[in-house]
Amino acid sequence: MSPIELRGCMSTNARVEIISIGNELLIGKILNTNAHWLAKRITSLGLSVCRITVVGDDVDEISSVLKESIQRKPAFIITTGGLGPTFDDKTLEGVAMATSRELEENREALEMIKRKYEEYVAEGRMERVELTQYRVKMARLPRGARPIPNPIGTAPGVLLEHEGAKLIMLPGVPEEMKAIFEESILPLLRKAAGNMFFYETSLEVVGIYESDLAPLIEEVMRENPYVYIKSHPKISERVQKIELHLSTTCSDESLARQRIERSIMQVSSLISERGGRIRPIQA
Amino acid sequence: MSPIELRGCMSTNARVEIISIGNELLIGKILNTNAHWLAKRITSLGLSVCRITVVGDDVDEISSVLKESIQRKPAFIITTGGLGPTFDDKTLEGVAMATSRELEENREALEMIKRKYEEYVAEGRMERVELTQYRVKMARLPRGARPIPNPIGTAPGVLLEHEGAKLIMLPGVPEEMKAIFEESILPLLRKAAGNMFFYETSLEVVGIYESDLAPLIEEVMRENPYVYIKSHPKISERVQKIELHLSTTCSDESLARQRIERSIMQVSSLISERGGRIRPIQA
Repeated sequence: MSPIELRGCMSTNARVEIISIGNELLIGKILNTNAHWLAKRITSLGLSVCRITVVGDDVDEISSVLKESIQRKPAFIITTGGLGPTFDDKTLEGVAMATSRELEENREALEMIKRKYEEYVAEGRMERVELTQYRVKMARLPRGARPIPNPIGTAPGVLLEHEGAKLIMLPGVPEEMKAIFEESILPLLRKAAGNMFFYETSLEVVGIYESDLAPLIEEVMRENPYVYIKSHPKISERVQKIELHLSTTCSDESLARQRIERSIMQVSSLISERGGRIRPIQA
Repeated sequence: MSPIELRGCMSTNARVEIISIGNELLIGKILNTNAHWLAKRITSLGLSVCRITVVGDDVDEISSVLKESIQRKPAFIITTGGLGPTFDDKTLEGVAMATSRELEENREALEMIKRKYEEYVAEGRMERVELTQYRVKMARLPRGARPIPNPIGTAPGVLLEHEGAKLIMLPGVPEEMKAIFEESILPLLRKAAGNMFFYETSLEVVGIYESDLAPLIEEVMRENPYVYIKSHPKISERVQKIELHLSTTCSDESLARQRIERSIMQVSSLISERGGRIRPIQA
């Protein structure tokens, strides 16, 4: 077996909820790659994503899901979608309703938007800057919120602290969402993560049914209380090909490695006794 | 412009919620293709998906999300994941908790599971059928629930009627989830859909900013109250390439076509006046 590869880091300190907003997700028009990217990125940064919710472009729905989320007291609530200039971009209205705040024109946000259109004029892609109500709409933030620069598009991200949670609103266009996240959200999350990390690795098991693997996993987890082991059957249990995912939360990489290696040795030996075998994941 | 292609069908009659269960989704290990597939399929069958939620392998979390969902009174709640033989397959325990029912060994479910292992023995892939507690676990259903045959894997799907909603629990392995859905869930959904359908088409708009397109969409929607038009900027607003998605709910295909064609003509003409143009989506 090749040396195990440890990846990622996730503390159990700070909990994060992700809310994706857009009818296009509910009708299955697009895959929710934004939530997937955020979940992976946030986990790797040392925080714990505890819920992902998708709702449509409806102010009441957005407000309800935000209120429910706020009640669960996560450290961060990150929304994607609904920040643009059209009538169905309703995220900020939903945030205002959920937090009982007024929407008001934010001077800093308006400046950001104005500068974007000035760039377009300078590049000759627009004749003159006209701050129509549709463009000004993107600068109408819930009272107390502040805009986050969007390095790619026009709609700024928005940050609002409310009842101990940081609400972070990002656009739905993946490139804009990622750019704002990397530039402005990363430092906030890093700070909240502390120094507890999440380590994980995967192996493939063949020649054993998942239902026969189940008691072996339990036995190894009992002897290794810091290691979480999860089996993921591939295609179906019948094919007897199972991905085994091992993870541990720890502030010390070498200790994490020791814990996971010990678990792998134990589970491998038990699997061999039952006629199965363990091998590195085939890429 | 090529003739418009109308696709899909979604009534506004019956609402559906999707709940995806699994830590692997929350750590971004896998993309939630199950929810995407279900959302698309359910929409095309004539129902309306109003929320998608992802939670981890935690009984309290599963129970909470189910209780919240039941309170919103959808016609169907469809869960995926957590039906297998391992200790962290907790969906049925969560359903039992949310609906205040006991888990009990279901004879029909146990028969289904037993028959699966008998097939494996007949195929020479297993020596004899041994109904271990891990295999029996998959047959422990909330009281009043009934098992749904799994044509591919061992864990049956589960159907439970509770407070006017149909709770449908499907496995997380995509092939098993899809097979059970197509074989046993489809007829239930078709019946609930009635004869109202959802028609949709997409076009591409270039040469106009989304913020300048916004008032044109509003104007056309005011004149065509049955048509919903949504703009999806591609890459970023700056690139000025926007997908325009038009949809309408209607029991008559030719009327749906008329409505959408009329909206396309009107919006095209307005976009042309502003220097933009409309074209079929490039595949």
